[in-house]
Amino acid sequence: MSRSAVTSAPVHPLLAERWSPRSFDPSYEITDGQLASLLEAARWAASARNIQPWRFIVGRRGDETYKAVHNALIGFNQVWAGNASVLIAAVTAERLEDGSPNATAAYDTGLAVAQLTVQAHAEGLHAHQMGGFVPERLAASFDIPEGFRPLAVIALGALAEADRLPDETLRARETETRARRPLDETFFAGSWQTPLGIG
Amino acid sequence: MSRSAVTSAPVHPLLAERWSPRSFDPSYEITDGQLASLLEAARWAASARNIQPWRFIVGRRGDETYKAVHNALIGFNQVWAGNASVLIAAVTAERLEDGSPNATAAYDTGLAVAQLTVQAHAEGLHAHQMGGFVPERLAASFDIPEGFRPLAVIALGALAEADRLPDETLRARETETRARRPLDETFFAGSWQTPLGIG
Repeated sequence: MSRSAVTSAPVHPLLAERWSPRSFDPSYEITDGQLASLLEAARWAASARNIQPWRFIVGRRGDETYKAVHNALIGFNQVWAGNASVLIAAVTAERLEDGSPNATAAYDTGLAVAQLTVQAHAEGLHAHQMGGFVPERLAASFDIPEGFRPLAVIALGALAEADRLPDETLRARETETRARRPLDETFFAGSWQTPLGIG
Repeated sequence: MSRSAVTSAPVHPLLAERWSPRSFDPSYEITDGQLASLLEAARWAASARNIQPWRFIVGRRGDETYKAVHNALIGFNQVWAGNASVLIAAVTAERLEDGSPNATAAYDTGLAVAQLTVQAHAEGLHAHQMGGFVPERLAASFDIPEGFRPLAVIALGALAEADRLPDETLRARETETRARRPLDETFFAGSWQTPLGIG
């Protein structure tokens, strides 16, 4: 199963082959070494003034952390995400040490998770980030203090074979064509919404 | 010049070798093909419900867009960033189509910029993201509408040789050791601030 993007210019395979599956192999166990590499990839991301606002709660299938993160998911995410080898809650520190807001906390945390995702592909794994979860459940389960906001739950693991997926809805979703807004509506020069005209 | 991170587990070279230089080669011209690949890498990032909140204003050294983005920078950024081949303002749509706030707009835009940065390294280039700019200047220069927030300015280009840097402050900064918060203060399991104990 592969869903490489049809890009208008060549992109590194670790990016071009990235997509967000819902079909994880329920028997695949991630090694300690793989997990350590994934976390290191996130840890070394850039951040404004090197503040590193990110924190991660990491569960491996079968442990209590995993169960609590899974329990915070909603809707269809609950159906498929429990096959992932790892579930990670990405949390950001919304304030600086002096209590003032960190304007780039969420942005910086996105930088870190993107690096984790690239490393996942380098390990032959896939990642699927979810916004569909109840932050209050995570906060309650893990005593996340005020000022820290869960931004995403990330499912990580190895792909299952699509034709072995148990659920019709899941099979249909896994074969949807990937799509993005056109270049001319994304990259501007001179003034807002004036296409850069490249690519 | 290289500042690979001393990671506690192996990380893909495109990530391990990423750092944020201030020493860009002022004569290096990025090709159309390189730029197209960088932008495609950003465009194919993941985002919540595939909303793709990111927009980018892209200037190439010598053009009016570049000058206006550079003019929005503050402090020391103004000194060094003008040698970059490209300056990009990363802007996010803070609201959804129905006018409600998009809680992951900044996070998703971080995902896109991280992919752009990975692609830059795949092209043999470097990137340096800056929070030190005046958003109002960008908004005024480019008629950025209300509801869109500039999050970062990204300098992209080829590294200059460190020993040819004109400025003592710049030379000192380029040789600082990279550092990150320890693993045990970043990755938790079970409860908040309980170290995952891996890596």
